Amino acid sequence: MSGSPALPAEVRVVNIGLPLFADAVRDQGTPVAQVDWRIPAGGDLIVVAALARLYGPAAEQVDAANAEVLRRLDSGVPLLREVAPAGDVVPDLAGRTLLHCGPAIDWPDVCDPLRRSMRAATVAEGWAADVEAADGLLAHGEVRLAPANPHATVVPMASAIGPSAPVYVVANAEGATTAFAPLSQGPGEVAWFGRETPAAIERLRFLRDVAGPTLAEVLRRTGPLDVFALAAQGVQMGDDLHMRTQATTNLLIRNLLPHLVDAGPAPVEMARYLSGNHLFFLTIAMAGAKALTLWAEQVPGSSIVTTMSRNGTEFGIRLAGHDRWFLAGAPPVRDALYYPGFGPETAAPDIGDSAVLELTGLGGPAAAGSPAVAAFLGGTMADARAATETLVEICGAESSRFTLPAMDFRGTPVGVDARKVVELGITPKINTGILHASAGTGQVGAGVATAPVECFVEAVLDLDERLR
Amino acid sequence: MSGSPALPAEVRVVNIGLPLFADAVRDQGTPVAQVDWRIPAGGDLIVVAALARLYGPAAEQVDAANAEVLRRLDSGVPLLREVAPAGDVVPDLAGRTLLHCGPAIDWPDVCDPLRRSMRAATVAEGWAADVEAADGLLAHGEVRLAPANPHATVVPMASAIGPSAPVYVVANAEGATTAFAPLSQGPGEVAWFGRETPAAIERLRFLRDVAGPTLAEVLRRTGPLDVFALAAQGVQMGDDLHMRTQATTNLLIRNLLPHLVDAGPAPVEMARYLSGNHLFFLTIAMAGAKALTLWAEQVPGSSIVTTMSRNGTEFGIRLAGHDRWFLAGAPPVRDALYYPGFGPETAAPDIGDSAVLELTGLGGPAAAGSPAVAAFLGGTMADARAATETLVEICGAESSRFTLPAMDFRGTPVGVDARKVVELGITPKINTGILHASAGTGQVGAGVATAPVECFVEAVLDLDERLR
Repeated sequence: MSGSPALPAEVRVVNIGLPLFADAVRDQGTPVAQVDWRIPAGGDLIVVAALARLYGPAAEQVDAANAEVLRRLDSGVPLLREVAPAGDVVPDLAGRTLLHCGPAIDWPDVCDPLRRSMRAATVAEGWAADVEAADGLLAHGEVRLAPANPHATVVPMASAIGPSAPVYVVANAEGATTAFAPLSQGPGEVAWFGRETPAAIERLRFLRDVAGPTLAEVLRRTGPLDVFALAAQGVQMGDDLHMRTQATTNLLIRNLLPHLVDAGPAPVEMARYLSGNHLFFLTIAMAGAKALTLWAEQVPGSSIVTTMSRNGTEFGIRLAGHDRWFLAGAPPVRDALYYPGFGPETAAPDIGDSAVLELTGLGGPAAAGSPAVAAFLGGTMADARAATETLVEICGAESSRFTLPAMDFRGTPVGVDARKVVELGITPKINTGILHASAGTGQVGAGVATAPVECFVEAVLDLDERLR
Repeated sequence: MSGSPALPAEVRVVNIGLPLFADAVRDQGTPVAQVDWRIPAGGDLIVVAALARLYGPAAEQVDAANAEVLRRLDSGVPLLREVAPAGDVVPDLAGRTLLHCGPAIDWPDVCDPLRRSMRAATVAEGWAADVEAADGLLAHGEVRLAPANPHATVVPMASAIGPSAPVYVVANAEGATTAFAPLSQGPGEVAWFGRETPAAIERLRFLRDVAGPTLAEVLRRTGPLDVFALAAQGVQMGDDLHMRTQATTNLLIRNLLPHLVDAGPAPVEMARYLSGNHLFFLTIAMAGAKALTLWAEQVPGSSIVTTMSRNGTEFGIRLAGHDRWFLAGAPPVRDALYYPGFGPETAAPDIGDSAVLELTGLGGPAAAGSPAVAAFLGGTMADARAATETLVEICGAESSRFTLPAMDFRGTPVGVDARKVVELGITPKINTGILHASAGTGQVGAGVATAPVECFVEAVLDLDERLR
C-alpha cells in the first residue's frame, strides 16, 4: 500500500453523523474524529425548509427579536408587592369562574386529578355544598372554566382557583407587567395534588381566611420583595426552584420572621403551615417568571417560547409575539421516583403551569446545582450537569443572575429557542411532581417530563409562515 | 550516543522531590515524571525518628487507637436537649468565673478583643457597674478566668461567658458525654467580636432574659434535636458550618417555627434576633462537635487531635487520651476578605474555640461544598475543592454523614492525625472571622487561619515518648 501514489501512507478519517461508520473504521485500528451531527428536524423536508429560512433570510429579524426577548427574561425584576383575593386583582375574573392550569379545556376532557381539584375549589368558593353537587355544576357548565395563563396567572400541578383564592401580585416595573399565582397549598391532602377530601377543601379555606390575610399584612409591613434575588440565593444553595425550593423558602421565612409572629389572625396555625411546607416558594417563583414572560411575549417575530403549560390532557406552548397556542398530548413523567406502592401505571400525565420556570433559567436549567434534583436524574452530580448542558443547546442565553457553582458559576440556560428545539430534536425537560391518574390519592412521586416536540414543530412552521 | 552500549537510545527520567531538577531536564526536551516528595518533618532528625517509631513499631497500637477515635467522631449522635444558664449545668462553674476561648491565660496576656469581651460579660453578670469597674476587678484577679474547654464547653471568637449566660446542652448518648456552648450573640455590636459598648452588654442580657428562656421552652416542646443531621443537610446546601451556617440556621428556624411564635416572653424581639442572625447555628454545631471530641478523647495512645483552640494569644491542641496542651503563637488569618477601610494591619490573630468543628468534618473540611467559602479561597469552586483535598491528606477518615455533592458525594475529611500533619508539614486550615486588634470596633473581615505546625511537632514527640 505504501507504494501506491493514489493513497497516502497514513489515513485519517473524519466521520460526520451516524457513529456506526466511525466504529467500523476504528475497529480496523485507524483513528477517527467523530462529529456529532444528525439530520435537522428528523429530515422532514418541509420543516428543514422552514428552518433554512428562519436561520437564513429571516435570521436577522428573528435574532433581533430574540435578543430583546432574552434581555427581558434575563433583566426584568419581578417584585412581590401584595397578596389579595384573585377576584379583586386578576383581570377579567368575574362570577362563577375557575382558573385552571394549562391550555383551555372543556369539562369532558378534564383529567381525573384536575376534576377533583375543580370540585374542591367549587365547594370552597361556596357554590356547592359538597363535591357531588360541585360535579353537577361543573358538568352542566354552571361554573365557567378558564385557563389561568391568559389571565396573567399561573397555577401549579392540578390547581383550579376561584375568585376568593388569595394570589401573589408580582409586578415587573420596567415592563409594566403584573402576574399572579396562588399561595402554595402545601403537601399531603391538598387539591393541587388532585384531592377533594374535606381536609383538602378546608386547606383552601385556610388559605383564604388565614394565610392570605397574614401574608398580605406581612407584605404591607416589609414592602416589595425581590423574588429572583431570593431565588438566585436559593440556586447557590441547591434549589432548582421547581422540584426543590427548600433553601429559598427558608430564606424567605427567616426574612419575614419578625412579622409572621404577630401578623394575621392565627400565627400558630400560620407557622405550622409554613413549617411543614418546603415548596412554599414555588408559586412565588412562578409568578415572578410569569411577570417576565408577559413582558417578553410583547416582542413580535421571535422564536423564543414564552408560554409552556399543561392541563394533564394537553401540553401547549406559545412563542413571543403571537397569541396562538400549539398543542400536543401531555407527556408522561419519566426518570421518576415513586412513593412505595406506586409506579408508572398509576401516574397521571404531566400537569401544571409551573413549566414557566423552565423558560426563565429555573427548574431543569438549574439542575446542575441541585443534589436533590440529581437524585431523579441518575444520582450523580454529573447526571445533573448533563441535564443543564443539554438545555444550553436549545436556549438563547445564559442567566446573569442564576449561576451554578458546580459549573464554575456559569449562568443557567434561559429562553428556549423553538428553532433549536426543532433542529436538534431536543425539547425542554421539566422537573415536576406526579399525581395519581384516577384514585384521588394525590402525589405518588416526582420526576422529569420531556416536552413533546410536535408543538414546537408547529410553532416553527407557523413562525416561518408569518415572517414570509 | 546511540552507539554507546552503556546508555539506552532513549532516556526517561523520574524526578523525586525538588521540581527544579525535573524542570531542567524538561527544558532539554526529555519527558520527566515528577514525584511530589518532600523530606518528612522538614528533615528534623529527632522528629523523623519519632515518626519512624509511630509509623513503625508503634503503628499497630496507634492505628488501633485512631480507629476507635475516628469511629467515635464519625458515628456519635449529638442531640441538643436543653438550654439552661451555664451556672446550672456546666461542671465546676461557680462564683465569679468567666469561661473564655482557647488555652488557659492570665489577664496581662489577654488580647484586646477578649479583654473587652470579658469586661462586657463582667458587667452583664452584675459584678461591676461599668466596663471601667470591670477592668479593675479583672486586673486584680477578682474575677476568675477559666478556659472553657476543660469545662466541656466551647465558645466562639472572643467569647467570655459567666454563670448566667444561657448555654446549649448537647448530649451524645452512646458516649455519655455532654457538651455546652453559648447562644450566638449575632452580628454587629457584640461582645464575641470584642465589643464592650452598652449595646453589646445589652445583647448579653437579652440572651439571658429572652433568647435563653424562649429556646429552653421551645426545646421542652420539640424534644431533642439531632444537631449533625441538620448540619448534614446544611452541607448539601453550601454550608461549611463554620464560616457559613445560613442553610442550617434556616432549616432549624423553619423546624422550630410553630413554637417560636408563642414561646418565651418576647416573640417579636426573639424573631428579630433570629431573622438577623445567619450564624445562629454556629454554636449549636460547636457544641455538637465538642460532645463527640469529649467521647473520642477518652481513647488513649492516639495521634488524632481532639482539642484545637485559640485565645488570640496562643494556639493550643491536645491529642486524644492525653490532658496536656501543646501551644504555639496564635497565627494571623490569611486568604482574608476585609470590610472596606480595614486590612491586615488592623487584624487580631486567630481566636476562638470554633476550630473544634474542623476536627469533626465541618468547617475547612467542608469547604468544597461551599460557594461562600470559595470566595475566601480564590473564588472558584476548584479552589474550595483543593482546600478540602489538602485536608484529606492529614485526616484519618471520611465522614459518613457530611457528604460533598461537588466531590461526587465523598465524605468530608474527619479526624486530624498529628503524625500526618508533622510528616507532610500540612496543618489544618480554619475558616474564621477577623476582629480588630485594638480599637474595639468588632469584626473587620473573615478568612482562613493556618494552624502553626510547632504544637503538632511537640504533640508527636510527646506521643512517641509516652508510647516508648
